[in-house]
Amino acid sequence: SRRKPLFIKELIKSILEGNHTALSRGITLVESTATKHQQQAKELIQGCLPHANNSIRIGITGVPGVGKSTFIESFGTLLTQKGKKVAVLAVDPSSTLSKGSILGDKTRMEELVKNPNAFIRPSASGESLGGVARKTREAIILCEAAGFDIIIIETVGVGQSETTVHSMTDFFLLLKLAGAGDELQGIKRGIMEMADAIVINKADGDNVKAAKLAKTEFNRALHLYPEKESGWTPKTLTCSSINNEGIEDVWNLIEEYSTTVKKNNYFQEKRNEQNKFWLMQTIESALKANFYHQAKVKKELEKQLQLLQAHKTTPFEAAEVLLKITS
Amino acid sequence: SRRKPLFIKELIKSILEGNHTALSRGITLVESTATKHQQQAKELIQGCLPHANNSIRIGITGVPGVGKSTFIESFGTLLTQKGKKVAVLAVDPSSTLSKGSILGDKTRMEELVKNPNAFIRPSASGESLGGVARKTREAIILCEAAGFDIIIIETVGVGQSETTVHSMTDFFLLLKLAGAGDELQGIKRGIMEMADAIVINKADGDNVKAAKLAKTEFNRALHLYPEKESGWTPKTLTCSSINNEGIEDVWNLIEEYSTTVKKNNYFQEKRNEQNKFWLMQTIESALKANFYHQAKVKKELEKQLQLLQAHKTTPFEAAEVLLKITS
Repeated sequence: SRRKPLFIKELIKSILEGNHTALSRGITLVESTATKHQQQAKELIQGCLPHANNSIRIGITGVPGVGKSTFIESFGTLLTQKGKKVAVLAVDPSSTLSKGSILGDKTRMEELVKNPNAFIRPSASGESLGGVARKTREAIILCEAAGFDIIIIETVGVGQSETTVHSMTDFFLLLKLAGAGDELQGIKRGIMEMADAIVINKADGDNVKAAKLAKTEFNRALHLYPEKESGWTPKTLTCSSINNEGIEDVWNLIEEYSTTVKKNNYFQEKRNEQNKFWLMQTIESALKANFYHQAKVKKELEKQLQLLQAHKTTPFEAAEVLLKITS
Repeated sequence: SRRKPLFIKELIKSILEGNHTALSRGITLVESTATKHQQQAKELIQGCLPHANNSIRIGITGVPGVGKSTFIESFGTLLTQKGKKVAVLAVDPSSTLSKGSILGDKTRMEELVKNPNAFIRPSASGESLGGVARKTREAIILCEAAGFDIIIIETVGVGQSETTVHSMTDFFLLLKLAGAGDELQGIKRGIMEMADAIVINKADGDNVKAAKLAKTEFNRALHLYPEKESGWTPKTLTCSSINNEGIEDVWNLIEEYSTTVKKNNYFQEKRNEQNKFWLMQTIESALKANFYHQAKVKKELEKQLQLLQAHKTTPFEAAEVLLKITS
């Protein structure tokens, strides 16, 4: 209803036509911190929203060295062969333009980057995970409006980034390697519980036996957890990204998942829940920031924390003092 | 420094002398929602605080039927035999005066309730877990001021209550039963990760073999988790509360834990972190409540959630609209 500047109108039109250059420009606009750009980005999102939401959003995580790029290259190429359009985004709060992000080195996905039905975008840079998350969620909308069927969100798993990616995707895939000894040691808290599938990569050559063993161990571990709200039982698979083995099984599994959760309505419920989560999250971050950023609050907080440490006040008494400052 | 009413001065004095009746009255004051009582409670806490903090706070959880009361009866009695003073509190957000709380039926701890070195107090009633948590934390201060060495906080594990108890205790103990089939099925998410020890109760009669098996399974499961910040490796024990077997091992384990974390300074660090957590938690709850309780926010939130569900706005756009209402 509102009059949009010609530039944004044209950008929306080009994105809806699936133009990759326009999509890139749109994401750059969304990522910009300039006030002028933020207003334009809002209008852009508003124009793209009615055309979004028709995709499967897949979160992929795994430690460095697990072969995420090779897996996505192989997996993404397969999907394009099946007639899908694939977008790859990344959530990597530590990345900056100078340091380069996990997807910055695009040569690691040599084939996919040249594929006309694939779109690869490095992680938005930003100091806060919240900021990167918001930009990524908005980039998803633009990608969907541009006609991408499959949105892959990759993360290296720094800090809370898996949780963040989990809360913006439909399916969460944990990439693992088979190794010597206890396969399960060192898995970050909570990651296994979030996974809809564990895929053991590099199941090739001398590694095949170890990968099969790891599969058994992970499967046993997955059964320790209570049933998922989705009604889906997480599964473990093995694959070799470099040999293109087992990749199709991963896609079949995701399609099986998708069918299951679309039938039982969990797919839409989860997206609604995710939207609500991000709404609440954004509000609460703002409320906290507004409170704690006040100079007088900062000063009093320091004082109250010292009193707490010296057992001269209780957390509740200290909170009351702090809340009274601003009321 | 401030003049306290005579009544509070005398109550503090009696509590510091270890008078159980005074302690009971003090906790009742802390639990009261009357404004007049809340001011008195503040003065009471202030008077007790310098004498608090010298205890080990032990959180105990387990599903109904696991034998929590019998375990605490046996464990508490042992501790008093060792010259300790033991207080038992409960966090049970669902309890009300009419329904009675888990510790309401004091006859379930027949011995302990008559023991002059033990103090048993049912859960504070309250609609919100936050409210119950605050009252319990303040009751801990009073118990410590009254000279109790060991504070046991029991919970039935409704909703988030384990997390709450975990965040106010030094040591977290999960009581389990050996059963047929997979021992680990149905453990609530995250509980195992919080546990410093798993104790398999009712390891007596025909149950001994199953309990040993369960011990092995739980030990294996515990090893799936990454190392704890405390440097402590959680352990699994078996015991029979009715036969008083293995109870001393539980206490030895807790003493071992206590020695370890006092040496590496984690004990004090954790308490400081817990205080900070409750301070922040209290502030953030208040900020949220102040925001969401406004009629105009409620009305707009409903509208924005509908727009979200219809894909007519994004979570971030909706949050901005809501935040503008009050600024």
